[in-house]
Amino acid sequence: MTPEEFRRLGHAVIDWIADYREGIAQHPVMAQVAPGEVRARLPQAPPEQPEDMAAVLADLDRVVLPGLTHWQSPRFFGYFPANAPLAGVLGDLVSTGLGVIGLSWQSGPAITELEEVVTDWVRQMVGLSSAWSGVIQDTASTSTLVALLCARERSSGYAMARGGMQEGAAPLLVYASAESHSSVEKAALLAGFGRDHLRLVPCDEIHAMRPEALAAMVEADLARGLRPCAVVATTGTTAVTAIDPVGALAEVAQRHGLWLHVDAAMAGSAMILPECRALWEGIEGADSLVLNPHKWLGVPFDASLYYVRDPQHLVRVMSTNPSYLQSAADGQVKTLRDWGIPLGRRFRALKLWFVIREQGVAALRARLRRDLENARWLAAQVEVTPQWRVLAPVPLQTLCLRHEPPGLAGEALDRHTMGWAERINRSGAAYLTPAVLDGRWMVRVSIGAEATERADVAALWQAMRAAAEG
Amino acid sequence: MTPEEFRRLGHAVIDWIADYREGIAQHPVMAQVAPGEVRARLPQAPPEQPEDMAAVLADLDRVVLPGLTHWQSPRFFGYFPANAPLAGVLGDLVSTGLGVIGLSWQSGPAITELEEVVTDWVRQMVGLSSAWSGVIQDTASTSTLVALLCARERSSGYAMARGGMQEGAAPLLVYASAESHSSVEKAALLAGFGRDHLRLVPCDEIHAMRPEALAAMVEADLARGLRPCAVVATTGTTAVTAIDPVGALAEVAQRHGLWLHVDAAMAGSAMILPECRALWEGIEGADSLVLNPHKWLGVPFDASLYYVRDPQHLVRVMSTNPSYLQSAADGQVKTLRDWGIPLGRRFRALKLWFVIREQGVAALRARLRRDLENARWLAAQVEVTPQWRVLAPVPLQTLCLRHEPPGLAGEALDRHTMGWAERINRSGAAYLTPAVLDGRWMVRVSIGAEATERADVAALWQAMRAAAEG
Ligand SMILES: Cc1ncc(COP(=O)(O)O)c(C=O)c1O
Ligand SMILES: Cc1ncc(COP(=O)(O)O)c(C=O)c1O
Repeated sequence: MTPEEFRRLGHAVIDWIADYREGIAQHPVMAQVAPGEVRARLPQAPPEQPEDMAAVLADLDRVVLPGLTHWQSPRFFGYFPANAPLAGVLGDLVSTGLGVIGLSWQSGPAITELEEVVTDWVRQMVGLSSAWSGVIQDTASTSTLVALLCARERSSGYAMARGGMQEGAAPLLVYASAESHSSVEKAALLAGFGRDHLRLVPCDEIHAMRPEALAAMVEADLARGLRPCAVVATTGTTAVTAIDPVGALAEVAQRHGLWLHVDAAMAGSAMILPECRALWEGIEGADSLVLNPHKWLGVPFDASLYYVRDPQHLVRVMSTNPSYLQSAADGQVKTLRDWGIPLGRRFRALKLWFVIREQGVAALRARLRRDLENARWLAAQVEVTPQWRVLAPVPLQTLCLRHEPPGLAGEALDRHTMGWAERINRSGAAYLTPAVLDGRWMVRVSIGAEATERADVAALWQAMRAAAEG
Repeated sequence: MTPEEFRRLGHAVIDWIADYREGIAQHPVMAQVAPGEVRARLPQAPPEQPEDMAAVLADLDRVVLPGLTHWQSPRFFGYFPANAPLAGVLGDLVSTGLGVIGLSWQSGPAITELEEVVTDWVRQMVGLSSAWSGVIQDTASTSTLVALLCARERSSGYAMARGGMQEGAAPLLVYASAESHSSVEKAALLAGFGRDHLRLVPCDEIHAMRPEALAAMVEADLARGLRPCAVVATTGTTAVTAIDPVGALAEVAQRHGLWLHVDAAMAGSAMILPECRALWEGIEGADSLVLNPHKWLGVPFDASLYYVRDPQHLVRVMSTNPSYLQSAADGQVKTLRDWGIPLGRRFRALKLWFVIREQGVAALRARLRRDLENARWLAAQVEVTPQWRVLAPVPLQTLCLRHEPPGLAGEALDRHTMGWAERINRSGAAYLTPAVLDGRWMVRVSIGAEATERADVAALWQAMRAAAEG
């Protein structure tokens, strides 16, 4: 494809995306295809000869769109929002169009330096002190794995340079709550701790980790000759956006020399609102934290920010320095390949830069406040409606609710819950992803897609009542 | 940004990229900025109010472009090529514009199913049997980490579900050559093996791992009661594109139950040429392999393909299944979050799909053959020129060379080598990244940028002679 052809086809793709976003509300939110249906529409072998790009673009409508669940729809209430504002789409387009890779500072100085600048912008936006240094990772899963690897190496006196996890000292332990995200367990297992050494700390009645329970477990483990290593606290758990008390957990961590990692993948976005910062009070006592601009804040996936207080330790754990990656500027510059797992790095800072500049921090704040207001409004409706129940506090934009007709309990109630949620999903009117809370299924309503306005939330509420009560 | 504004600005960004690619040869290949220069041109704090997008786009010329090393330049001969053909840029743009995330099949069925299709297309293109299943990872570094984690769990009987690496059995060992990529050592260390348990197998005179040396080391380690676990073979090492003998290594691996992972990050692209497939003869005996379409083949970074023969084992090591990620279709579909480390996944298959369809396999083959031809041509020039030396075989598109004036040796020769390479880089005429071979610096010429034609290689040769001899 020549640059001239790219101009013509590029304009067509831009227009196609503009049309898609303009008409987004017309699509059934959840994909209506059956397993294998998309695959069956595609050739099993690659084309030997070039195809007409018109045919490729036509396949976007024919094959791709019907096979998608529409995350940017105003009636997407599943998982957590993953906003992809159009300014961010342009920032990412520039990155791909430039086709530059950050292997070292010299391989693209602006990749490193713009990343330093925008991660520091976000640091200021969420009210963190200048003691924190940030880096862009792909996902919170990876960030949390990096955190546990760093914790492991700090506790073991950098055993990776010697016998590794196999060195024969007493086992290292990780602490989290049962409400922590599955990526915490996955990271602990991949980092080699072993499931036996992942301790699930009990929660209080609103699903927050109990600091005194953590302290008691750590002390008991120490008494048994084990080595407590890290605690992962969550600000905004996935099922119910529960808020672990970071300050009190940091005290326990400091007392025993544990690494404290804070998973604020979702709720980190809320910290651009000063009125929300009490939710992670004590955050300055953590060693590392992750927040995902690719969720509610709205930078196109993937853009997860990992902040640390001791970047030198991070670099020590992650660095490699083969001759073929050395360059004249080394030593005077940051080498971001040593801040994470992958070697090659995309120019991801561009999409953050575009979104923050196009929006301005004030507008970002206003959008998040709109969503908090919508969540409070819906909670108020649910609370005053007979047989409906809000099951957990609503500190952010996610509601956990259930329709509980008299006489329904246990598995029958689960069937009812899953039934009405599934009917809504299948209808295409809205998308909801249920989860288990205290052993029973409930429905999460996660508000905060960029396009979601009060009317969409009101329509969802009507749809839920009709589906559950009807 | 409304869809209407996006149309206008999107066309402008497309045109900007088209102009950039049209004029790419006019930029000095290596960035000419000093450390800190890009950062100094940017505000230290984020904007409170929205900025005009015209200002943002103007900053691309003012701040970003001067801060880049131009990987898409026809005179980029550093590292390995990282081609980003314009069709792939469009495929990635569609992905970002859709803003959909693959958390589960249901969250975007086409994300999973198109990935199944295109990874199978590439499998066929490189001549692998249908016993292999593929998945897209971000980088080869991550793919190799995944491989060593899977090896670790196979050898330990899935210890991650129990005591992890800390279980107290005899240490597990990983084998690779000193020429293997730094990501292999990094993966072994992060996976918890420890540097003491990473064995560097000696190479022959052309830098390929010696199978009989591997066999001897494994036997000695077994005799000492240690547990050999995995061997990483490289098809196309980074410094010199050396070719480890996969077939012979696979025999040793099979004899002792070792996991064989093949790092074909670079040379995997070459396997679309039947005449190159002898280079990884025996590949069907491996357990896993990685190849990077984001290198020579030309799918915009990041797109690394990881192939395995036993996907069930991969899933067992990587899977998590919290309630909030379950959906009605589970069980009938692939769940690709269980094929790697991150939870959230971009719709990366689109860019592979666009590139392969726009090009057709025949044209991809023709481009790679052009590059191989150019490398042979340059090697022939160097070989017949007094005082110049090709230092290693040229199985692919990378040459290792040195200018060796009489009387210069040791560190003086290193200074000479680094001096002339640095002069070329600073001049902006071309970009070269030296490396160490057998303890001495040499210059790698890695041919294969999409835009590089014979004339560019000839111009490089003139520039090298002038810089070194002049
Ligand atoms: C609290 C929390 N942590 C981590 C994650 C994982 O995010 P990612 O997909 O970026 O790995 C999520 C995803 O929803 C989350 O809610
Ligand atoms: C042989 C080899 N393996 C692995 C890699 C790492 O690639 P990535 O940046 O995708 O991690 C490289 C990069 O040049 C390489 O040459």
